[in-house]
Amino acid sequence: MDCIAGLLSLREGQAFVIHAGAHVQDIIDNNQIFRVLNRDVVKFMPLPMAQDIALHDAAGETLGLSVRAFAVPGKIPLYQETSDDPRLLASAAAVIGLAITGPGGQRMVYIPGCAAVTDEVRHEIAQADLLFFDGTLWEDDEMIRAGLSQKTGKRMGHISISGEDGSMAALSGVTAARKIFIHINNTNPILCAGSPQAEAVRAAGWEIAYDGMECRL
Amino acid sequence: MDCIAGLLSLREGQAFVIHAGAHVQDIIDNNQIFRVLNRDVVKFMPLPMAQDIALHDAAGETLGLSVRAFAVPGKIPLYQETSDDPRLLASAAAVIGLAITGPGGQRMVYIPGCAAVTDEVRHEIAQADLLFFDGTLWEDDEMIRAGLSQKTGKRMGHISISGEDGSMAALSGVTAARKIFIHINNTNPILCAGSPQAEAVRAAGWEIAYDGMECRL
Repeated sequence: MDCIAGLLSLREGQAFVIHAGAHVQDIIDNNQIFRVLNRDVVKFMPLPMAQDIALHDAAGETLGLSVRAFAVPGKIPLYQETSDDPRLLASAAAVIGLAITGPGGQRMVYIPGCAAVTDEVRHEIAQADLLFFDGTLWEDDEMIRAGLSQKTGKRMGHISISGEDGSMAALSGVTAARKIFIHINNTNPILCAGSPQAEAVRAAGWEIAYDGMECRL
Repeated sequence: MDCIAGLLSLREGQAFVIHAGAHVQDIIDNNQIFRVLNRDVVKFMPLPMAQDIALHDAAGETLGLSVRAFAVPGKIPLYQETSDDPRLLASAAAVIGLAITGPGGQRMVYIPGCAAVTDEVRHEIAQADLLFFDGTLWEDDEMIRAGLSQKTGKRMGHISISGEDGSMAALSGVTAARKIFIHINNTNPILCAGSPQAEAVRAAGWEIAYDGMECRL
Protein backbone atom coordinates (compact mmCIF):
# COMPACT_ATOMS: atom_id res chain seq x y z
CA MET A 1 0.00 0.00 0.00
CA ASP A 2 2.71 2.45 0.97
CA CYS A 3 4.37 1.89 -2.39
CA ILE A 4 1.39 1.99 -4.77
CA ALA A 5 -1.28 4.32 -3.30
CA GLY A 6 0.65 7.37 -4.52
CA LEU A 7 0.11 6.22 -8.11
CA LEU A 8 -3.49 7.42 -7.77
CA SER A 9 -2.15 10.96 -7.38
CA LEU A 10 0.08 10.62 -10.48
CA ARG A 11 -2.76 10.17 -12.96
CA GLU A 12 -2.83 13.54 -14.70
CA GLY A 13 -1.17 12.64 -17.98
CA GLN A 14 2.50 13.05 -17.04
CA ALA A 15 4.78 10.48 -18.67
CA PHE A 16 6.78 8.26 -16.33
CA VAL A 17 7.97 4.67 -16.00
CA ILE A 18 6.94 2.23 -13.30
CA HIS A 19 9.37 -0.57 -12.56
CA ALA A 20 7.38 -3.22 -10.73
CA GLY A 21 7.99 -6.80 -9.73
CA ALA A 22 5.50 -9.43 -10.81
CA HIS A 23 3.57 -9.41 -7.52
CA VAL A 24 2.93 -5.66 -7.57
CA GLN A 25 2.32 -5.64 -11.31
CA ASP A 26 -0.44 -8.21 -10.77
CA ILE A 27 -2.06 -6.09 -8.06
CA ILE A 28 -2.10 -3.04 -10.33
CA ASP A 29 -3.25 -4.93 -13.42
CA ASN A 30 -6.12 -6.59 -11.61
CA ASN A 31 -7.44 -3.63 -9.67
CA GLN A 32 -9.89 -1.42 -11.54
CA ILE A 33 -8.94 1.72 -9.65
CA PHE A 34 -5.44 1.74 -11.16
CA ARG A 35 -7.02 2.19 -14.58
CA VAL A 36 -6.71 5.91 -13.76
CA LEU A 37 -3.12 5.51 -15.01
CA ASN A 38 -3.24 5.96 -18.79
CA ARG A 39 -1.15 3.13 -20.23
CA ASP A 40 -0.43 5.23 -23.32
CA VAL A 41 1.49 7.65 -21.08
CA VAL A 42 2.63 5.60 -18.10
CA LYS A 43 4.91 2.74 -19.08
CA PHE A 44 5.38 -0.39 -17.03
CA MET A 45 8.71 -2.18 -16.99
CA PRO A 46 9.27 -5.56 -15.38
CA LEU A 47 11.59 -5.70 -12.40
CA PRO A 48 13.22 -9.14 -12.47
CA MET A 49 14.82 -10.41 -9.29
CA ALA A 50 18.57 -10.33 -8.68
CA GLN A 51 19.46 -8.54 -11.92
CA ASP A 52 20.97 -5.09 -12.38
CA ILE A 53 18.62 -3.07 -14.58
CA ALA A 54 19.64 0.26 -16.16
CA LEU A 55 16.99 2.91 -15.55
CA HIS A 56 15.58 5.18 -18.27
CA ASP A 57 13.01 7.94 -18.22
CA ALA A 58 9.75 7.80 -20.19
CA ALA A 59 11.51 9.19 -23.28
CA GLY A 60 14.10 6.40 -23.14
CA GLU A 61 16.94 8.62 -21.90
CA THR A 62 19.33 6.93 -19.50
CA LEU A 63 19.25 8.11 -15.90
CA GLY A 64 22.73 6.86 -15.04
CA LEU A 65 21.28 4.66 -12.34
CA SER A 66 20.82 0.93 -12.07
CA VAL A 67 18.44 -0.93 -9.80
CA ARG A 68 18.57 -4.45 -8.49
CA ALA A 69 15.61 -6.07 -6.76
CA PHE A 70 16.16 -8.93 -4.36
CA ALA A 71 13.92 -11.18 -2.28
CA VAL A 72 13.42 -10.38 1.39
CA PRO A 73 11.63 -12.54 3.97
CA GLY A 74 8.17 -11.15 4.58
CA LYS A 75 4.50 -11.55 3.90
CA ILE A 76 1.83 -10.46 1.43
CA PRO A 77 0.01 -7.17 2.18
CA LEU A 78 -2.73 -7.27 4.80
CA TYR A 79 -5.44 -6.36 2.28
CA GLN A 80 -4.50 -9.40 0.18
CA GLU A 81 -4.80 -11.88 3.04
CA THR A 82 -7.47 -14.53 2.67
CA SER A 83 -6.26 -16.77 5.48
CA ASP A 84 -4.24 -16.79 8.68
CA ASP A 85 -2.14 -19.66 7.38
CA PRO A 86 1.51 -18.59 7.67
CA ARG A 87 2.38 -20.62 4.60
CA LEU A 88 -0.02 -18.52 2.53
CA LEU A 89 1.09 -15.28 4.13
CA ALA A 90 4.71 -15.80 3.15
CA SER A 91 5.52 -15.23 -0.49
CA ALA A 92 8.96 -15.10 -2.04
CA ALA A 93 7.77 -12.60 -4.62
CA ALA A 94 5.74 -10.31 -2.38
CA VAL A 95 8.53 -8.59 -0.47
CA ILE A 96 11.59 -7.13 -2.08
CA GLY A 97 14.49 -4.86 -1.31
CA LEU A 98 16.13 -2.54 -3.81
CA ALA A 99 19.79 -1.75 -4.40
CA ILE A 100 20.27 1.40 -6.47
CA THR A 101 23.71 2.17 -7.86
CA GLY A 102 24.74 5.61 -9.13
CA PRO A 103 27.13 6.57 -11.94
CA GLY A 104 30.08 6.73 -9.54
CA GLY A 105 29.29 3.36 -8.04
CA GLN A 106 27.53 4.79 -4.99
CA ARG A 107 25.15 2.16 -3.64
CA MET A 108 21.94 2.67 -1.71
CA VAL A 109 20.04 -0.30 -0.31
CA TYR A 110 16.36 0.13 0.58
CA ILE A 111 14.56 -2.51 2.67
CA PRO A 112 11.36 -1.03 4.17
CA GLY A 113 9.94 -4.39 5.28
CA CYS A 114 11.93 -7.41 6.44
CA ALA A 115 10.90 -10.36 8.60
CA ALA A 116 14.39 -11.75 9.20
CA VAL A 117 18.00 -10.90 8.36
CA THR A 118 19.05 -13.87 6.26
CA ASP A 119 22.41 -14.48 4.64
CA GLU A 120 20.92 -13.27 1.34
CA VAL A 121 19.78 -10.00 2.90
CA ARG A 122 23.17 -9.55 4.58
CA HIS A 123 24.91 -10.20 1.25
CA GLU A 124 22.87 -7.53 -0.54
CA ILE A 125 23.61 -5.01 2.21
CA ALA A 126 27.35 -5.74 2.35
CA GLN A 127 28.38 -3.22 -0.34
CA ALA A 128 25.97 -0.45 0.64
CA ASP A 129 27.16 3.11 1.24
CA LEU A 130 23.70 4.03 2.50
CA LEU A 131 21.21 1.63 4.06
CA PHE A 132 17.52 2.27 4.68
CA PHE A 133 16.13 -0.53 6.82
CA ASP A 134 12.79 -1.62 8.33
CA GLY A 135 12.41 0.18 11.65
CA THR A 136 8.71 -0.54 12.16
CA LEU A 137 8.82 -1.75 15.76
CA TRP A 138 11.17 -1.60 18.72
CA GLU A 139 9.67 -4.73 20.31
CA ASP A 140 7.52 -7.45 18.79
CA ASP A 141 4.43 -6.90 20.98
CA GLU A 142 4.46 -3.13 21.41
CA MET A 143 1.27 -2.55 19.40
CA ILE A 144 -0.62 -5.08 21.53
CA ARG A 145 0.63 -3.54 24.78
CA ALA A 146 -0.40 -0.11 23.53
CA GLY A 147 -3.91 -1.46 22.93
CA LEU A 148 -3.80 -0.47 19.27
CA SER A 149 -3.76 -3.82 17.52
CA GLN A 150 -3.78 -7.56 18.11
CA LYS A 151 -0.83 -8.05 15.80
CA THR A 152 2.77 -8.77 16.63
CA GLY A 153 5.62 -7.63 14.43
CA LYS A 154 6.20 -11.25 13.44
CA ARG A 155 2.57 -11.50 12.28
CA MET A 156 3.08 -8.39 10.16
CA GLY A 157 6.35 -9.57 8.66
CA HIS A 158 8.55 -7.05 10.46
CA ILE A 159 11.64 -7.88 12.50
CA SER A 160 11.95 -5.71 15.63
CA ILE A 161 14.91 -3.41 16.21
CA SER A 162 15.81 -4.51 19.75
CA GLY A 163 16.78 -7.79 21.34
CA GLU A 164 19.18 -10.58 20.58
CA ASP A 165 17.26 -11.54 17.46
CA GLY A 166 16.56 -7.93 16.46
CA SER A 167 17.82 -6.01 13.46
CA MET A 168 20.31 -3.89 15.41
CA ALA A 169 22.14 -7.02 16.58
CA ALA A 170 21.83 -8.79 13.24
CA LEU A 171 23.22 -5.82 11.31
CA SER A 172 25.98 -4.81 13.75
CA GLY A 173 28.65 -5.71 11.21
CA VAL A 174 27.30 -3.54 8.39
CA THR A 175 29.95 -1.14 7.07
CA ALA A 176 27.67 1.38 5.31
CA ALA A 177 28.66 4.97 6.11
CA ARG A 178 25.02 5.73 6.92
CA LYS A 179 22.38 3.37 8.32
CA ILE A 180 18.89 4.80 8.68
CA PHE A 181 15.77 3.24 10.18
CA ILE A 182 12.67 3.98 8.08
CA HIS A 183 9.01 2.84 8.03
CA ILE A 184 8.84 3.58 11.76
CA ASN A 185 5.47 2.84 13.38
CA ASN A 186 3.92 5.42 15.70
CA THR A 187 4.29 3.02 18.64
CA ASN A 188 8.07 2.84 18.25
CA PRO A 189 9.79 4.74 21.11
CA ILE A 190 12.77 5.66 18.91
CA LEU A 191 10.48 8.40 17.56
CA CYS A 192 10.67 10.13 20.97
CA ALA A 193 13.75 12.36 20.90
CA GLY A 194 16.00 11.58 23.83
CA SER A 195 14.31 8.31 24.76
CA PRO A 196 16.63 5.48 25.88
CA GLN A 197 15.63 3.57 22.77
CA ALA A 198 16.51 6.50 20.48
CA GLU A 199 19.82 6.84 22.29
CA ALA A 200 20.54 3.12 21.92
CA VAL A 201 19.88 3.26 18.19
CA ARG A 202 22.14 6.27 17.71
CA ALA A 203 24.88 4.75 19.87
CA ALA A 204 24.85 1.77 17.50
CA GLY A 205 25.48 4.09 14.55
CA TRP A 206 21.92 4.30 13.22
CA GLU A 207 19.98 7.39 12.21
CA ILE A 208 16.22 7.79 12.61
CA ALA A 209 14.37 8.93 9.49
CA TYR A 210 12.04 11.95 9.55
CA ASP A 211 9.62 13.54 7.08
CA GLY A 212 11.50 15.54 4.48
CA MET A 213 14.86 13.85 5.15
CA GLU A 214 17.29 14.11 2.23
CA CYS A 215 20.42 12.02 1.70
CA ARG A 216 23.20 12.60 -0.83
CA LEU A 217 25.72 10.10 -2.12
CA MET B 1 -11.43 8.91 -7.43
CA ASP B 2 -11.12 12.39 -5.93
CA CYS B 3 -13.59 11.38 -3.22
CA ILE B 4 -12.32 7.91 -2.25
CA ALA B 5 -8.53 7.80 -2.80
CA GLY B 6 -7.97 9.65 0.49
CA LEU B 7 -9.49 6.72 2.36
CA LEU B 8 -6.25 4.84 1.73
CA SER B 9 -4.48 7.40 3.90
CA LEU B 10 -7.05 7.04 6.72
CA ARG B 11 -6.32 3.42 7.48
CA GLU B 12 -4.38 3.67 10.72
CA GLY B 13 -7.03 2.58 13.18
CA GLN B 14 -8.80 5.90 13.79
CA ALA B 15 -12.56 5.55 14.19
CA PHE B 16 -14.73 7.46 11.75
CA VAL B 17 -17.94 7.08 9.76
CA ILE B 18 -18.22 6.95 5.98
CA HIS B 19 -21.55 7.99 4.52
CA ALA B 20 -21.62 6.62 1.00
CA GLY B 21 -24.24 6.23 -1.68
CA ALA B 22 -24.85 2.80 -3.14
CA HIS B 23 -22.64 3.36 -6.18
CA VAL B 24 -19.58 4.35 -4.15
CA GLN B 25 -20.27 1.74 -1.48
CA ASP B 26 -20.18 -0.93 -4.21
CA ILE B 27 -16.83 0.34 -5.49
CA ILE B 28 -15.32 0.21 -2.01
CA ASP B 29 -16.85 -3.15 -1.12
CA ASN B 30 -15.65 -4.80 -4.32
CA ASN B 31 -12.13 -3.43 -4.44
CA GLN B 32 -9.55 -5.39 -2.47
CA ILE B 33 -7.37 -2.36 -1.78
CA PHE B 34 -10.05 -0.78 0.42
CA ARG B 35 -9.72 -3.70 2.81
CA VAL B 36 -7.03 -1.52 4.42
CA LEU B 37 -9.97 0.12 6.21
CA ASN B 38 -10.69 -1.99 9.28
CA ARG B 39 -14.47 -2.46 9.35
CA ASP B 40 -14.35 -2.92 13.12
CA VAL B 41 -13.19 0.69 13.41
CA VAL B 42 -14.49 2.44 10.30
CA LYS B 43 -18.27 2.36 10.05
CA PHE B 44 -20.19 2.64 6.81
CA MET B 45 -23.59 4.31 6.73
CA PRO B 46 -25.87 4.32 3.71
CA LEU B 47 -26.55 7.66 2.07
CA PRO B 48 -30.03 7.43 0.58
CA MET B 49 -31.03 9.91 -2.09
CA ALA B 50 -33.18 12.96 -1.38
CA GLN B 51 -33.42 12.40 2.39
CA ASP B 52 -32.07 14.56 5.19
CA ILE B 53 -29.78 12.41 7.35
CA ALA B 54 -28.55 13.53 10.77
CA LEU B 55 -24.79 13.07 11.06
CA HIS B 56 -23.09 11.39 14.02
CA ASP B 57 -19.47 10.67 14.84
CA ALA B 58 -18.07 7.15 15.27
CA ALA B 59 -19.13 7.15 18.95
CA GLY B 60 -22.74 7.96 18.02
CA GLU B 61 -22.60 11.58 19.19
CA THR B 62 -24.60 14.00 17.10
CA LEU B 63 -22.63 16.50 15.04
CA GLY B 64 -25.51 18.98 14.69
CA LEU B 65 -25.34 18.65 10.94
CA SER B 66 -27.61 17.00 8.44
CA VAL B 67 -26.73 15.91 4.92
CA ARG B 68 -28.95 15.38 1.91
CA ALA B 69 -27.69 13.66 -1.23
CA PHE B 70 -29.37 14.31 -4.54
CA ALA B 71 -28.92 13.07 -8.10
CA VAL B 72 -26.94 15.17 -10.55
CA PRO B 73 -26.55 14.54 -14.30
CA GLY B 74 -23.17 12.99 -14.98
CA LYS B 75 -21.33 9.83 -15.82
CA ILE B 76 -19.61 6.94 -14.09
CA PRO B 77 -15.89 7.37 -13.27
CA LEU B 78 -13.43 6.91 -16.12
CA TYR B 79 -11.81 3.88 -14.50
CA GLN B 80 -15.19 2.13 -14.40
CA GLU B 81 -15.92 2.60 -18.10
CA THR B 82 -16.20 -0.55 -20.17
CA SER B 83 -17.74 1.06 -23.24
CA ASP B 84 -18.10 4.37 -25.06
CA ASP B 85 -21.88 3.95 -25.12
CA PRO B 86 -23.37 7.15 -23.63
CA ARG B 87 -26.27 5.15 -22.19
CA LEU B 88 -23.83 3.08 -20.15
CA LEU B 89 -21.77 6.08 -19.14
CA ALA B 90 -24.74 7.87 -17.64
CA SER B 91 -25.92 6.57 -14.29
CA ALA B 92 -28.49 8.14 -12.04
CA ALA B 93 -26.71 6.77 -8.98
CA ALA B 94 -23.11 7.54 -9.94
CA VAL B 95 -23.09 11.31 -9.56
CA ILE B 96 -24.50 13.13 -6.58
CA GLY B 97 -24.49 16.51 -4.97
CA LEU B 98 -24.64 17.14 -1.23
CA ALA B 99 -26.58 19.71 0.76
CA ILE B 100 -25.26 20.07 4.31
CA THR B 101 -27.33 22.01 6.83
CA GLY B 102 -25.92 23.36 10.09
CA PRO B 103 -27.58 23.78 13.49
CA GLY B 104 -28.65 27.35 12.64
CA GLY B 105 -30.11 26.34 9.31
CA GLN B 106 -27.06 27.43 7.31
CA ARG B 107 -27.02 25.49 4.07
CA MET B 108 -24.02 24.54 1.96
CA VAL B 109 -24.49 22.83 -1.41
CA TYR B 110 -21.59 20.90 -2.94
CA ILE B 111 -21.68 19.81 -6.59
CA PRO B 112 -18.15 19.00 -7.81
CA GLY B 113 -19.29 17.32 -11.03
CA CYS B 114 -22.37 18.21 -13.08
CA ALA B 115 -23.16 17.59 -16.75
CA ALA B 116 -26.21 19.87 -16.96
CA VAL B 117 -28.13 22.28 -14.75
CA THR B 118 -31.54 20.63 -14.59
CA ASP B 119 -34.61 21.81 -12.73
CA GLU B 120 -33.78 19.31 -9.97
CA VAL B 121 -30.26 20.70 -9.57
CA ARG B 122 -31.62 24.26 -9.57
CA HIS B 123 -34.18 23.30 -6.93
CA GLU B 124 -31.50 21.86 -4.62
CA ILE B 125 -29.37 24.99 -5.01
CA ALA B 126 -32.23 27.43 -4.43
CA GLN B 127 -31.92 27.58 -0.63
CA ALA B 128 -28.11 27.54 -0.47
CA ASP B 129 -26.17 30.13 1.50
CA LEU B 130 -22.92 28.78 0.08
CA LEU B 131 -22.58 26.97 -3.24
CA PHE B 132 -19.59 24.98 -4.44
CA PHE B 133 -20.05 24.13 -8.11
CA ASP B 134 -18.24 22.21 -10.87
CA GLY B 135 -15.72 24.60 -12.44
CA THR B 136 -13.73 21.97 -14.35
CA LEU B 137 -13.59 23.68 -17.74
CA TRP B 138 -14.09 27.14 -19.19
CA GLU B 139 -14.89 25.77 -22.67
CA ASP B 140 -15.92 22.28 -23.75
CA ASP B 141 -12.90 21.57 -26.01
CA GLU B 142 -10.09 23.34 -24.11
CA MET B 143 -8.25 20.13 -23.20
CA ILE B 144 -8.22 19.04 -26.85
CA ARG B 145 -6.96 22.43 -28.03
CA ALA B 146 -4.22 22.31 -25.38
CA GLY B 147 -3.13 18.94 -26.78
CA LEU B 148 -3.60 17.27 -23.40
CA SER B 149 -6.52 14.97 -24.02
CA GLN B 150 -8.98 13.84 -26.67
CA LYS B 151 -11.92 14.37 -24.33
CA THR B 152 -14.46 17.14 -24.29
CA GLY B 153 -16.13 18.32 -21.12
CA LYS B 154 -19.37 16.72 -22.30
CA ARG B 155 -17.57 13.38 -22.68
CA MET B 156 -16.31 13.73 -19.10
CA GLY B 157 -19.69 14.70 -17.67
CA HIS B 158 -18.74 18.31 -16.91
CA ILE B 159 -20.70 21.37 -18.03
CA SER B 160 -18.43 24.28 -19.02
CA ILE B 161 -18.52 27.62 -17.24
CA SER B 162 -18.82 29.88 -20.28
CA GLY B 163 -21.30 30.21 -23.13
CA GLU B 164 -25.04 30.38 -23.46
CA ASP B 165 -25.41 26.80 -22.22
CA GLY B 166 -22.69 27.14 -19.59
CA SER B 167 -23.03 27.05 -15.82
CA MET B 168 -22.54 30.78 -15.30
CA ALA B 169 -25.57 31.53 -17.48
CA ALA B 170 -27.62 28.67 -16.10
CA LEU B 171 -26.98 29.69 -12.48
CA SER B 172 -27.29 33.47 -12.90
CA GLY B 173 -30.41 33.53 -10.73
CA VAL B 174 -28.84 31.77 -7.73
CA THR B 175 -29.22 33.83 -4.56
CA ALA B 176 -26.50 32.19 -2.43
CA ALA B 177 -24.35 34.76 -0.65
CA ARG B 178 -21.25 32.96 -1.88
CA LYS B 179 -20.84 30.97 -5.11
CA ILE B 180 -17.48 29.27 -5.59
CA PHE B 181 -16.15 27.32 -8.56
CA ILE B 182 -14.28 24.20 -7.46
CA HIS B 183 -12.75 21.12 -9.16
CA ILE B 184 -10.99 23.47 -11.60
CA ASN B 185 -8.90 21.73 -14.26
CA ASN B 186 -5.38 22.98 -14.96
CA THR B 187 -6.45 24.02 -18.47
CA ASN B 188 -9.11 26.41 -17.16
CA PRO B 189 -8.00 30.03 -17.69
CA ILE B 190 -9.90 31.23 -14.61
CA LEU B 191 -6.89 29.89 -12.67
CA CYS B 192 -4.77 32.71 -14.18
CA ALA B 193 -5.19 35.73 -11.92
CA GLY B 194 -6.30 38.75 -13.93
CA SER B 195 -7.26 36.79 -17.04
CA PRO B 196 -10.41 37.98 -18.85
CA GLN B 197 -12.05 34.70 -17.90
CA ALA B 198 -11.23 35.13 -14.19
CA GLU B 199 -12.55 38.69 -14.38
CA ALA B 200 -15.75 37.51 -16.06
CA VAL B 201 -16.35 34.92 -13.36
CA ARG B 202 -15.80 37.42 -10.57
CA ALA B 203 -17.98 40.04 -12.29
CA ALA B 204 -20.79 37.47 -12.24
CA GLY B 205 -20.43 37.11 -8.48
CA TRP B 206 -18.42 33.89 -8.40
CA GLU B 207 -15.28 33.13 -6.40
CA ILE B 208 -12.47 30.85 -7.59
CA ALA B 209 -11.42 28.17 -5.12
CA TYR B 210 -7.77 27.73 -4.10
CA ASP B 211 -5.83 25.20 -2.03
CA GLY B 212 -6.39 25.80 1.68
CA MET B 213 -9.52 27.92 1.16
CA GLU B 214 -11.77 28.05 4.25
CA CYS B 215 -15.39 29.13 4.37
CA ARG B 216 -17.52 29.85 7.45
CA LEU B 217 -21.28 29.89 7.71
